[in-house]
Amino acid sequence: MIAILKPGTTPAQMQHLVDWLKHMNLDVHISKGTEVTVLGLIGDTSRVDMDLLKSLDMVESVKRVSEPYKQANRKFHPKDTIVQAGDVRIGGGYFAMIAGPCSVESEEQIIAVARAVKESGANILRGGAFKPRTSPYAFQGMNGEGIRLLLEAKKATGLPIVTEIMNITALDMFADVDIIQVGARNMQNFDLLKELGKTQKPILLKRGLANTLQELLMSAEYIMSEGNEQVILCERGIRTFETATRNTLDLSAVSVLHKLTHLPVVVDPSHATGKADLVAPMAYAATAAGADGIMIEVHNNPACALCDGAQSLTPHQFDEVCHKVRKIREAIV
Amino acid sequence: MIAILKPGTTPAQMQHLVDWLKHMNLDVHISKGTEVTVLGLIGDTSRVDMDLLKSLDMVESVKRVSEPYKQANRKFHPKDTIVQAGDVRIGGGYFAMIAGPCSVESEEQIIAVARAVKESGANILRGGAFKPRTSPYAFQGMNGEGIRLLLEAKKATGLPIVTEIMNITALDMFADVDIIQVGARNMQNFDLLKELGKTQKPILLKRGLANTLQELLMSAEYIMSEGNEQVILCERGIRTFETATRNTLDLSAVSVLHKLTHLPVVVDPSHATGKADLVAPMAYAATAAGADGIMIEVHNNPACALCDGAQSLTPHQFDEVCHKVRKIREAIV
Amino acid sequence: MIAILKPGTTPAQMQHLVDWLKHMNLDVHISKGTEVTVLGLIGDTSRVDMDLLKSLDMVESVKRVSEPYKQANRKFHPKDTIVQAGDVRIGGGYFAMIAGPCSVESEEQIIAVARAVKESGANILRGGAFKPRTSPYAFQGMNGEGIRLLLEAKKATGLPIVTEIMNITALDMFADVDIIQVGARNMQNFDLLKELGKTQKPILLKRGLANTLQELLMSAEYIMSEGNEQVILCERGIRTFETATRNTLDLSAVSVLHKLTHLPVVVDPSHATGKADLVAPMAYAATAAGADGIMIEVHNNPACALCDGAQSLTPHQFDEVCHKVRKIREAIV
Amino acid sequence: MIAILKPGTTPAQMQHLVDWLKHMNLDVHISKGTEVTVLGLIGDTSRVDMDLLKSLDMVESVKRVSEPYKQANRKFHPKDTIVQAGDVRIGGGYFAMIAGPCSVESEEQIIAVARAVKESGANILRGGAFKPRTSPYAFQGMNGEGIRLLLEAKKATGLPIVTEIMNITALDMFADVDIIQVGARNMQNFDLLKELGKTQKPILLKRGLANTLQELLMSAEYIMSEGNEQVILCERGIRTFETATRNTLDLSAVSVLHKLTHLPVVVDPSHATGKADLVAPMAYAATAAGADGIMIEVHNNPACALCDGAQSLTPHQFDEVCHKVRKIREAIV
Repeated sequence: MIAILKPGTTPAQMQHLVDWLKHMNLDVHISKGTEVTVLGLIGDTSRVDMDLLKSLDMVESVKRVSEPYKQANRKFHPKDTIVQAGDVRIGGGYFAMIAGPCSVESEEQIIAVARAVKESGANILRGGAFKPRTSPYAFQGMNGEGIRLLLEAKKATGLPIVTEIMNITALDMFADVDIIQVGARNMQNFDLLKELGKTQKPILLKRGLANTLQELLMSAEYIMSEGNEQVILCERGIRTFETATRNTLDLSAVSVLHKLTHLPVVVDPSHATGKADLVAPMAYAATAAGADGIMIEVHNNPACALCDGAQSLTPHQFDEVCHKVRKIREAIV
Repeated sequence: MIAILKPGTTPAQMQHLVDWLKHMNLDVHISKGTEVTVLGLIGDTSRVDMDLLKSLDMVESVKRVSEPYKQANRKFHPKDTIVQAGDVRIGGGYFAMIAGPCSVESEEQIIAVARAVKESGANILRGGAFKPRTSPYAFQGMNGEGIRLLLEAKKATGLPIVTEIMNITALDMFADVDIIQVGARNMQNFDLLKELGKTQKPILLKRGLANTLQELLMSAEYIMSEGNEQVILCERGIRTFETATRNTLDLSAVSVLHKLTHLPVVVDPSHATGKADLVAPMAYAATAAGADGIMIEVHNNPACALCDGAQSLTPHQFDEVCHKVRKIREAIV
Repeated sequence: MIAILKPGTTPAQMQHLVDWLKHMNLDVHISKGTEVTVLGLIGDTSRVDMDLLKSLDMVESVKRVSEPYKQANRKFHPKDTIVQAGDVRIGGGYFAMIAGPCSVESEEQIIAVARAVKESGANILRGGAFKPRTSPYAFQGMNGEGIRLLLEAKKATGLPIVTEIMNITALDMFADVDIIQVGARNMQNFDLLKELGKTQKPILLKRGLANTLQELLMSAEYIMSEGNEQVILCERGIRTFETATRNTLDLSAVSVLHKLTHLPVVVDPSHATGKADLVAPMAYAATAAGADGIMIEVHNNPACALCDGAQSLTPHQFDEVCHKVRKIREAIV
Repeated sequence: MIAILKPGTTPAQMQHLVDWLKHMNLDVHISKGTEVTVLGLIGDTSRVDMDLLKSLDMVESVKRVSEPYKQANRKFHPKDTIVQAGDVRIGGGYFAMIAGPCSVESEEQIIAVARAVKESGANILRGGAFKPRTSPYAFQGMNGEGIRLLLEAKKATGLPIVTEIMNITALDMFADVDIIQVGARNMQNFDLLKELGKTQKPILLKRGLANTLQELLMSAEYIMSEGNEQVILCERGIRTFETATRNTLDLSAVSVLHKLTHLPVVVDPSHATGKADLVAPMAYAATAAGADGIMIEVHNNPACALCDGAQSLTPHQFDEVCHKVRKIREAIV
C-alpha cells in the first residue's frame, strides 16, 4: 500500500502517522520527493482501513499495491478452482448450464421444467423458494415447501439444485440443497456470509447491483476466510442510468474476474436484462466472453407464471440456446 | 396502474392478460387507440409485479399511477410523523442533531464524546457497536460490549442512543437502545426489516448505495406493514461515477421524500463525503434543504481513531456546525 | 403519448393544458378514472417536450407510447439498412471488421498496420487524425496531415477509411474519407450532427459516455432528418461506478438497438475496456451478441505508441481475433 | 506521477519504459520493494497520457500526485479569481444571482422578466437563444433574434446577460453578450473551448452530465491555456440511476471545487431537478454549501412557456428565494 502525503505535512505529523502504521505491524518505507512524500507500507495491509487513511488531512491519496483479498486471489492460487456440486463440476473448463423457473410453484411445474431443461442439456436445476421482493405485498415464495419440491425434482431427474437463502436462521432447510445462492441484495450481508463460510456447501454469490468487482471478491473472501472455498461468482447486471434494460450486464466482469481470481464465474442473463428476447443473445455473449456457466430462467408456461415469467424462456427456446452455447464454446477453444 | 400493449397484440392474447389481471382482483379498463391499446388496472395494484408485466411480450410498457407504498405514503397520511426517542422528537418541525464516534472504543471515549456533543447541542448520541466492514480482516466493532458502553454514556448524559443492527439474532442486545439503525448495505435485507417491524422501536433506515427513493420507501413499508410506524429515513450518499467524494450526497432526496412521505428525513454528511472538511458545508446544505436532522461523526481525537476517524469532526468543529445549523434553520423559516 | 394528471387537478387547469396541447395540433383523448385522469395525446408527438410536460404541477407523469425518432425507427423501416463504404457493406448480414491504430503517426506506420490488418481479414481501416483529448497539453493528433496519410494507406491497400471529425469547419478535409466518425463526446453536438446530415457520407456515430440508447437514436435522427440515412451506431462503453475497466461495455445495447432501429450496430471493445487483454474476449462477446461489426485498435508496436498504444492488439493478436470472430459468426447463424 | 509495476516485470521491460519516459523529459525515480517496483515520474507530467500508461501490460496502476491542470489549480493561484461581467463581480465573496427564462420568446417577455428579477435582486439576466434539444423536431430557439432581444432587455434594465453558444461559427453574434455559456453537452467540445479561450469574454462552463470534477477542471484548463482566465464553473446535476429527479444535483462539488480551484462556482438548481418545487430548497442548499452564485429559471407565465416553463419559478416565488438566499448567506458567514 502506498500513501502519498500532501506538500505541507510537517515532520511531526508524518512521524505520528508512521508510528500508528508501525503499531499495526507494518514496515514503512519513506521516499521524499521534491513535491510530495510517498510512504510505502510493507506487511499485511489487508487490515488497513483505506478510507480512514484517505480521510486524514495530511494524506493526498492512497493506493493499494496488493489486493485486499487473499484466499480468492489468483496470485496465491494460480490454478482454477473447480467447484463440485453433486457430480457436476464448475470451473477449470467445466461448464455449468443452470436452468429452471424463477419461483417454485408446484410439484408438477418444477418436475416438468427440470425434465425439460435436463433433456436440453442443463446440468443444474435452479428455482426460487425464498424470494426477495421489493414490495412487502408481493408473493414471497413457497419457502420450506418450495425447497421440498426442488428436492423432489432433484430425485426425479438427478440434477443438483441451487436456491437462494435470505436469512441464516433458515440454514437447516438447506441441508440437502447442493448449491446455496446469495442474492444481489445480500452480497454485503456480512453476517450471512460468515455463517455460510462455516458450511461446506458450494455458494453461488451474486454481484450486488452497485458493487465493484473488488467488493464482490471481498464478499467471497468473507466466506472463504471462514473455511469454505467452494464459491462461484455470478455477474447479473449492475445499476446504471440506462433504462432500456432492467440492469446493465457487465460482461467484461468475466474476463476481469478470471484474471483476479481462481474462482469460477457464471452469468445470469435473465435477471440482468428482464426481457426474454435479450436472454439468448446475452447467453451467447457471456459464453463467448469465457464464462464458466450460464444461469437461465426457463418456465413451462411463461405467460402465466406468478413471478418473472416473461423473462423466462420456454423449454423450446432454451433448447436452442443450449445448442448454440455448445457451438460457441467450440469456436473459442 | 397503466399497461400499454404493443401494436401487434391479438385479441386472444389481450383477453388472456385481462383474465389473469382480473384473477388478481383488479378491474381492467380497456382503451383502444389508433396505435396502441391502454389497459387501466383499478384496485389494489400493490401486489402486481411490474417487472413481470413489463417483461411480457405483448406489453410495451407499464406505469404506476398510484405509489406501491401505502403506510409510508403522504397521500394517505398528510400530517408529518413525529418519531419519539426517549424524550426527543424528530420530524414535524423537531430537529435531530445526532452526533458521536464512528465506533465505540472505550468507556472513557464514548462518555467524553457524549458530554462534548451534548454541550454543543446534540440531542441524540450515535456510535457503532456492530460494524459492517467490506473486509473480513478489518475491525468489526466491539459488539455487545459496545452497546453496554453506549448505555453507560446514555446514563451519564441523558442522551438517547442510536446504533446499528446487522443481524436479527442480535435483537435482544438492543432492548435498551432508543433507535435501531439499519445500514445502507442492509436496506433490502427484507427479513431483517420484517422483524424490526414487529418491535416498537424507532428505526433509522439508511438509503442503500444504489437504491432509488421509491425503493427506500418500499423498505420503510416492510417495517411499517408489520406494525411499526416509527421510521426515520436517512440520506447518506449514493454511488456514482464521481471519485472526488466517497459517495454523492443527494440532497434533493430531502425535498422529494418530504413530498412523497410523512416520515422524517435526516442526512448523514460524514459517510457521504468521507472527508472532514466537507462535513460542515454539507451539514449546512442539508439543513437549508429542509432536513429533519443531521447525523455527524464526532471524535475526541480524530487522528488516532481506529475507524473512520478522519471524516469525524472534533468537538470544537462540531460546536461551530451546531451554531450555524441553528442560524440556517432560522433563515429558512 | 400519455399524461397522467394528479388527483387534485381542477377542471380549469385541465382545460388549460388540453387547449395548449390542441394548439400543438394534437388530439387529446380524456379518460377519467376514480383516482386519476389520463390524457391520451394523438398525432405527431415528436415535437412535444416531455420534460416540460412532466414538470407541470398538475402532471403526475408522462409516458411516450410511440418513439420520438421516426427515420431511425424500425417500426417504419422494418428492413435492415445496409451502409455502403467504398465497396464494403455493413449491416443486414454484412460484417465490418474495422481495425487500425489509435492515432496516425507516420506514413510507414499507417501503411504497415493497414497491410497487416487487411491480411488478417479487416475490411475497413481506422486511424485518428483529430484526437479529442481531456488535457489541452496532450498530443492532439496530426490533423490534416493524418488524413493525408490515411488516404495513402487507402491507396496502398484498397481499404476504405474511417476517421473522427471534431469540428464542422474541418469538413473539407474529409472529402475522400469513406466514413466520418462522430466521437462519444460529440454525440450531442447537435450543430455538428445537422451539418453531417447534409453530406452523403456514411457516419459512424459513437454512443456518449452517459447517453441512453434512446438519446443515441435521437442523435442519429438529427443526421437522418437532414437527409443522410447512412448512419452506423457504435457501442463503446458507458460510464458507471466500476473502476476495474475504463468504461462498462453494454452489450445488451446491440440486441436492444437491433429491435428499435434498422441501422447497423458495431462495437468498439478497445476504448470500452482500455486494456489489451480484455479486447479479444469482448470482441468475441460482441460478435456472439449479434453485432454488425467490430472496431479494434491494432498497432505494429504497442509498447511505443504515442497514444493509447497498449490497449491495442498486435497484428498477431488481431489475426487470432479475426479467426475466432469468423467461427463465432458461424456458430450463431 | 507514480507508476506501480507488476511483480513479473523484467529489467529489460522496465528499462524500455524508463527510456520512453525520459524521452518525454521526465526524471524517473525507481523504488524497488519486495513485492512491487514503484516509478516516481518527476517533471511536467501533464503531457503524460495516464490511460496509455495504465494500459501497458507491465503496469499495475498509475496515480497522479500533482493535478493535470495548472492554470485552474488553486495550488498555484491561492487567491480566489473574481470574474467581472459588466459591473457585476462573481467569486471571492461576490455573489451572482442569475435569473431569467429558459428561452427568449419575445421582446415583451424578456424585458418583463428582466425587470421583475432585477427588482427581486438578480444581478445577471439569463435566457436561451440557441437551444440544444435532444430531438431535431423540438423548438431550437430564436437564435440571433433571441440574442438581439436579450440585448434589448440589457439596455432596458442594465443587467449583464449570459446566453449559450453551441457552435463557434456563431461567435460574432456574441460580441455584446457579457458572459458566454458552454452547455453540459459541449463541456468536452474541445475545439469550441479553445476558440473561446482566445476571446476575453467571461465563460460560464457547465459540468457535463457524466463528467468528473477533474474533467470539468481540464475543460476550464482548455479555455485558460489559450489565455482567457475568466471562467465560471457551474454544477447542474449529474446522471445517476435515480429517476425521481431529472438529474442528481451534486452539491459537494461546490466545496470540492473550492479546494481544488480558484475559479468561482455557481449552481443551477432548475436544470438539475426539473421541477419548480425543488428549485427553492436546492437554491438554499447550494447557498449554504458556499456557492458563489445561483442560476434560476424565472418566467412570467410558467404554465404557458414554450420550453421548460414549469421548472421555472414565478417572479413572486423568485422574490422569496432571493430573500432567503440573502439570509442564508448571512447565517454562514
